[in-house]
Amino acid sequence: MTRVNVAMIGTRFMGRAHANAWRQVRAFCEPPVDPVMKVVCGQDPERAATAADRMGFGESATDWREVVARPDVDVVDVCTPGDTHAEIAIAAAEAGKVVFCEKPLANTVGEAESMLAAVERAGVLHMLCHNYRRAPAVALAKRMIDAGELGEIRHYRGVYLQDWIVDPDFPRVWRLEKARAGSGALGDIASHSLDLARHLVGEIAEVSGLLETFVRERPLEDGGGRGPVDVDDAALTLLRFECGAIGSVEGSRFCPGRKNHNRFEINGSKGSLVFDLERMNELRVYREEGADSGFRTVLATDETHPYVEAWWPPGHLLGYEHTFTHTVLDLLRAIGADRLPTPNFRDGVAIQRVLDAIERSDATRRWEAV
Amino acid sequence: MTRVNVAMIGTRFMGRAHANAWRQVRAFCEPPVDPVMKVVCGQDPERAATAADRMGFGESATDWREVVARPDVDVVDVCTPGDTHAEIAIAAAEAGKVVFCEKPLANTVGEAESMLAAVERAGVLHMLCHNYRRAPAVALAKRMIDAGELGEIRHYRGVYLQDWIVDPDFPRVWRLEKARAGSGALGDIASHSLDLARHLVGEIAEVSGLLETFVRERPLEDGGGRGPVDVDDAALTLLRFECGAIGSVEGSRFCPGRKNHNRFEINGSKGSLVFDLERMNELRVYREEGADSGFRTVLATDETHPYVEAWWPPGHLLGYEHTFTHTVLDLLRAIGADRLPTPNFRDGVAIQRVLDAIERSDATRRWEAV
Amino acid sequence: MTRVNVAMIGTRFMGRAHANAWRQVRAFCEPPVDPVMKVVCGQDPERAATAADRMGFGESATDWREVVARPDVDVVDVCTPGDTHAEIAIAAAEAGKVVFCEKPLANTVGEAESMLAAVERAGVLHMLCHNYRRAPAVALAKRMIDAGELGEIRHYRGVYLQDWIVDPDFPRVWRLEKARAGSGALGDIASHSLDLARHLVGEIAEVSGLLETFVRERPLEDGGGRGPVDVDDAALTLLRFECGAIGSVEGSRFCPGRKNHNRFEINGSKGSLVFDLERMNELRVYREEGADSGFRTVLATDETHPYVEAWWPPGHLLGYEHTFTHTVLDLLRAIGADRLPTPNFRDGVAIQRVLDAIERSDATRRWEAV
Amino acid sequence: MTRVNVAMIGTRFMGRAHANAWRQVRAFCEPPVDPVMKVVCGQDPERAATAADRMGFGESATDWREVVARPDVDVVDVCTPGDTHAEIAIAAAEAGKVVFCEKPLANTVGEAESMLAAVERAGVLHMLCHNYRRAPAVALAKRMIDAGELGEIRHYRGVYLQDWIVDPDFPRVWRLEKARAGSGALGDIASHSLDLARHLVGEIAEVSGLLETFVRERPLEDGGGRGPVDVDDAALTLLRFECGAIGSVEGSRFCPGRKNHNRFEINGSKGSLVFDLERMNELRVYREEGADSGFRTVLATDETHPYVEAWWPPGHLLGYEHTFTHTVLDLLRAIGADRLPTPNFRDGVAIQRVLDAIERSDATRRWEAV
Repeated sequence: MTRVNVAMIGTRFMGRAHANAWRQVRAFCEPPVDPVMKVVCGQDPERAATAADRMGFGESATDWREVVARPDVDVVDVCTPGDTHAEIAIAAAEAGKVVFCEKPLANTVGEAESMLAAVERAGVLHMLCHNYRRAPAVALAKRMIDAGELGEIRHYRGVYLQDWIVDPDFPRVWRLEKARAGSGALGDIASHSLDLARHLVGEIAEVSGLLETFVRERPLEDGGGRGPVDVDDAALTLLRFECGAIGSVEGSRFCPGRKNHNRFEINGSKGSLVFDLERMNELRVYREEGADSGFRTVLATDETHPYVEAWWPPGHLLGYEHTFTHTVLDLLRAIGADRLPTPNFRDGVAIQRVLDAIERSDATRRWEAV
Repeated sequence: MTRVNVAMIGTRFMGRAHANAWRQVRAFCEPPVDPVMKVVCGQDPERAATAADRMGFGESATDWREVVARPDVDVVDVCTPGDTHAEIAIAAAEAGKVVFCEKPLANTVGEAESMLAAVERAGVLHMLCHNYRRAPAVALAKRMIDAGELGEIRHYRGVYLQDWIVDPDFPRVWRLEKARAGSGALGDIASHSLDLARHLVGEIAEVSGLLETFVRERPLEDGGGRGPVDVDDAALTLLRFECGAIGSVEGSRFCPGRKNHNRFEINGSKGSLVFDLERMNELRVYREEGADSGFRTVLATDETHPYVEAWWPPGHLLGYEHTFTHTVLDLLRAIGADRLPTPNFRDGVAIQRVLDAIERSDATRRWEAV
Repeated sequence: MTRVNVAMIGTRFMGRAHANAWRQVRAFCEPPVDPVMKVVCGQDPERAATAADRMGFGESATDWREVVARPDVDVVDVCTPGDTHAEIAIAAAEAGKVVFCEKPLANTVGEAESMLAAVERAGVLHMLCHNYRRAPAVALAKRMIDAGELGEIRHYRGVYLQDWIVDPDFPRVWRLEKARAGSGALGDIASHSLDLARHLVGEIAEVSGLLETFVRERPLEDGGGRGPVDVDDAALTLLRFECGAIGSVEGSRFCPGRKNHNRFEINGSKGSLVFDLERMNELRVYREEGADSGFRTVLATDETHPYVEAWWPPGHLLGYEHTFTHTVLDLLRAIGADRLPTPNFRDGVAIQRVLDAIERSDATRRWEAV
Repeated sequence: MTRVNVAMIGTRFMGRAHANAWRQVRAFCEPPVDPVMKVVCGQDPERAATAADRMGFGESATDWREVVARPDVDVVDVCTPGDTHAEIAIAAAEAGKVVFCEKPLANTVGEAESMLAAVERAGVLHMLCHNYRRAPAVALAKRMIDAGELGEIRHYRGVYLQDWIVDPDFPRVWRLEKARAGSGALGDIASHSLDLARHLVGEIAEVSGLLETFVRERPLEDGGGRGPVDVDDAALTLLRFECGAIGSVEGSRFCPGRKNHNRFEINGSKGSLVFDLERMNELRVYREEGADSGFRTVLATDETHPYVEAWWPPGHLLGYEHTFTHTVLDLLRAIGADRLPTPNFRDGVAIQRVLDAIERSDATRRWEAV
C-alpha cells in the first residue's frame, strides 16, 4: 500500500487539527505511505463543504455511516465529541478500516473495552491520538528515559491547568455536561497528564483521587436560565506506579493565568526532567555533573531531536499543530510496516481504567486499585 | 522593657541563623526593644565558646537548665534538634521566659500540646520560627491575599524538593532517624509548605497522605555497617481546607537538581501567585487585566514591600538569613507591645496535628480529618 | 480579483517556508483573495518537480524568465539567494506582476534602488518579506507602541545571535562569500533586528558600526583546501534614531548556545517590552503600575492578539512558519484592497542604506549618517 | 598582625554596606586577620553616633583628617561620594594606612592617578571596592574562564539598567551633578559593567561611546525651581579588547522595570556565560555537549562555589551585601599575606581611563584609544 484514502469524521477544533496534519505530513515529512484526503464528514452540509474546501479534502459528506462503509476509504479518523467515538469506531472497524481516534477513546471503561474488542476482532490497525507524546521535547524525554539517563524513576509530578471557566457566568457548554463529555477536567486535561505518566514512567497501580466542582450552576447556552454542572472543575490524584515510583496529577480549569499549562517533572536516581506545554520547544534537563550542575534548557529544535529534521534549522520553533502531524506520520509508518502504532486502543482502555479508579476513589475516599 | 537579654540554646545550623538575626536586627531594622546577646549554650564547651566569640554573644555555657533559669535572661531561643524542644521550652516557660522555638515545635502532637499548655500556664509570650513566612515576597503574597486581590482561594499547590540524599551511600544522619527527627521529609520540609498553606489559605480540614522511603538502609556515620532508615524520604498529601479550597503538598529529598525548591502556587477566583524559594526575591503575580494579562514577576525589593525599607534600594537582593532577622524583628515588636506574635505554639500544635493526620492517612489508606 | 496565481522562484529553505505559507493561508485564515499555487521554479528539474509535488504547486519549471513572463501568473514570489533578487524582481515588475521578495531586498543599495524604481515605474504592488514583524508577539508590541502605551521611546536594544559557525572547520558555504551573500551576520541576521528597530521605533539617523571576522579562512565545500571568508562573523552598531531614541544592534554567528536568539528590548517613558524569538509566543511587558509592578509574560496566543484568531485556543503555541503565513495573508489583503503592503521595497532600500552606513562607519571609524 | 583597627569614613548607603561587611566577616568567614570596628566618621555628629551604635563601631567622629591620622587606625575605608575620595585616600596613604576605597576611585583620571601615586609612594596596601566581582556566581564565571572552559573569548555584552529617574519630576540629586558625581550612568553603573569586562575578558583597547541626557532640567531638591542636569542619563559604548574580543556596554537609568539589572553575556569559542544581578545567585552556563546541550542554570550556592562554604547549605540564597563581605574578606587575606589585593588603585586608574575615552569618543564621534 503506498497510498491510503482518509475519511475524517468531525470538523470542529480537533477536525481542523487532524486535517492540518494530513495535509502537512507529506509536505514536510516523508511518510512511507501517502495519505489522500478523500472525504470529510460533518452534520451540517454547508459547514462540511466549507471544511472540505478549506482543509483540502476532496469531498464532503454528512452521514458518517455511509462514509465509514465506503470501499474507497482506508482510514477513518474520528474527531467527534467523546460520546460518539464508540459507535463510529466500532462501525469503522467492522468495515475493515484502520481506525484513528482522538482522545479520550470513550466516556466509560465499558465503551472503551468494546471498541478495543471491535478492532481486535476485525484485525484492523488502530491508534489513539494523544498528540503531546509527539512534541519533540516530550519525545526527547522519552528517549532519555528509555536510554537510562534518569536512572530509576522515583517521582512523576504532572499538572494540566487552564482558566477558561473561572468566570462563574461562563456558560454551561457541552464540555460541562457529564452525558456528553463523560467528565470535566479529569477526562479532558488530567487524562493528558496521565497518558504522559504511563508513557514516560509506566503503568499506574493505584490512586487516591479528589474531584471538586467549584461552580455548580451556570447559564445555559440558549439563554434560558441556569443549569447544573455535573462534571468536575478540578481533579487531583496521588499515584503509585507498578515500578515503585510515586506521583501526583492534577487537572483544573480554575487557575487564572494558566492557559494551557501541561507541565510535568520527573525525578529519577540520576537526573530530572521538566516540560511545560506553554514552552513546548524546551525540555529542562538535570544531570548530576559535579560542582557546576544545573537544570539545562534544551531547545528541542536540532535535527537530532525527534521529528525535527523534517522542519527548520535549530532555534526555529514548532507549534501546537505539529504534534498532530507527527502522530499522523507515525500512523502512516505503522500502516506502511503493518504493525500496531502506539498509543492505541489498548492504551485507551488503560487510561479509561485509571480515570475510573480516580472517580471511584473520590467516592470511597480510599485508595483504589486501577 | 527597652532591652531584652537573649539566651540561645544550640550552636549548629539553626544556631548560626538565629544568632545572625539577633545581631543584624538592630543594625538594620528599628526594633522597639533592643536584644542583648547574653549567652549561647552548647554541649561542647569549646564549640560554645567559639560560637559566643564569633556570633557575638557575651558569654557561653554548656548546661541549658542553668541558662534558662538565669534571672538575667529574658528570652530563650531554642535551636536544638526537635527531640529536645519540649523539655527546654517547658523549662523556659516555667522560668517565666519568652520562648522562641525553631520549627518543628516538637516531634509529636503530645509534646507540642504539652509545650503549648506550659507557655499558656506560665503566661509567657511564645513564638515558633517558621522563617519563610517573612521572606518579603511571601509576606507580600499574604498582604495581597488578605486584601482580597486573589478573590476566593481555590487551589494551593506546594512542593518542597531537595536532593541531598539521592545517593544511596549518603550516611544515615540524625535527620534519618525517627527517634531523633520525628519524621523525614514530612516534618523537615513538607511542614514548611504546610505552614505556608495554613498561613496563606487557612486551616486544613482533612488529608490523604502518602509516605515513601526509597532507600531503606544506609551506611552508619561511625563507619560500622549499615542501619535502617525509619523515616520517609518523600511525603505527599492531598488537602481539603476548611474554606473550601483544595490542594496538595509534597516534600521530597529525592529530586536531583532541586536544592531548596520550596515552591507554592495559589489560584483564586481573581488571580494567582507563584513563589519559589530558589528565587526568593520574586513573586509571580497574575491578575486578570484584559487582553494583555500575564504572570508578572514582582521583584519584592521595593521599600513598599514588607520588611524591605530596612535594607537596600530596589533591585538589591536579600538572602536566606534575612527571613530570620525579620522573624526576630516581629518577635521584638510583639514583646514591645506585649502581644502574642505569630506563628506561635498554637500554630505549632496545629501543624503537628496535620503531620499526624498525614501519617495516619498513610497507614489507613483513607482520608483522615486533622 | 478573487484569485491570484502565484509563481514561486526558489525551492530551498525560504522556498519551503513561503510555499507553506501559500498553502496554509487559505486553510486557516480568510484572505479576501485566494492564492492559487500555480508554478514553482528551480534550477534542477527533478528537484523542482519534487518541490511542486510535495509543496502543492500545480507545476514546476526551471527557467525563471519564462515563468515571470507567463500571462497566467499574477504574483511572483522571489525566494532565491540575495544576489539574484534584483534581476528576477525587476523582470517580474516589468511583466506587470505583484512582486513579493524575501529579505534582503538586494546585496547593495544600488540594486535595491533599481528594484524600487522598477516596481514604481511598473505600478505594481510590492512587498518585502521580513517575516518576524508578523509573529503575534511582535505585532502586539507594535500595537502597544502605536497606542502610546510605552510613551516616548528612549532605547532599542537588539541582538540576533546564532552559533552555527563557531567551529573553525565549518565549511565556507555561500553565506560566507561576499559575492553571493553581500555580507555576513550584518545582512543575514542583524538586518532583521534593524528592520524591527525601524518598524517599532522609527527611522535610523546615524550609526557607529563595527564588523569583525574571527575565522578568516575555512575549508572549501568541495573539499579542496581552504578559502577566505570575506564577510563579517559579527556586526555591532550603535544607533541614533530620528525620534531621539538611541540604541544598539548586534548580529553574531559566534555565540555558543544561541540558536536563533533574535531578541529586542525597548524602553519608553512609560514602560518596556522584551521579545525573544526562541520564546516567540511570549512578549514581556512592563508598565509602571505602582508597588507591585513587574515584567509580565504575555502569552500572545489569545484570540485578541494579532493573527491568533485564525489558529487555536489560548495557550496553544504557534511556530516559526506561521510568521510567513501571516505575511502572505497581509499581502493578499493588500492585493484585495489594491494598496501597498508593508514592509515593501521602500523599506528594503531604507534597510540597505542602514547596512551600508554601518559598513562605511566600520571603515571610517566614525559615526556615519544613514 | 592578627587584628586591624578599621576607620570608616561615610555613613550613608555605602557606609552601611561596608560596615555590615566588617561586622559579618568574622561571624561567618575565617579571615586570617580580625577586623576591629574602631571608629566611624560622618559630618553630622548625631548621625555619626547613631551609625556607630547601630553598625557596631566603637566610637564616632566628625573630622576625617583626625581620624585618618590616628595611630590606632590601621585601615581607612572610604565610603564618601566620589568627589572626596582623592583627598581622603591620599591623606590616609600618607599616614601609612591601608586604604580601602569604594568605587569609583575618583571623578577624573588625574585624581585617580594622584591617588595611585600616593599609595605607591607610601608603600601601603590599597584596594578598590568593585563588589560585584565577588558575587559567588561572578567569581565562578571568573574561575571557569581562567580554567579555559570558554576557550577564546569573542564577545562581552554588558548592560546595567535602572529606572529610578524615568520620572522627569524626580529631583536633581547629587548623582545628577557633574561637579559631585563626575558623570551619570557612565561612572555610576556602566563602570561596574566595564570593571567586570576588564576582570573577565581583559584590557580594553578602544571604544566608540555615546552619551545621552534625556531630561535636561529637573526640580531642585530644596524646592526652588529647576536646575540643569549636566551628566549622562545613558551611556553606550562599543569595545575592542586587547585580546581580540569585541563587545558592548551600556548603562542607563531610563529603563522602566529594570531595578538593578547588571547583566553580562560572554561568548567564547567553547561556551557562553550569562549573569544577571537581579538573579545574582545564578550563573547560566552553556557548553557544547552534543545533541542535548543547553544553557544550564547553575545555582551558585554549593560549598564548592567561591565564598559559599562560609554560609549556608545548597539552595540557600545570598544577597547584595554578601558581595561586600567577600571583598572585605579578601582584603583581610591580602593584609594577612602582605600582598596587594585586586581590584586596587591601578584598576581604578585603568577604569577611569576607559570612562575618559568614552567621554572623548562621544565628543569626537570617533573611536578613541583608551
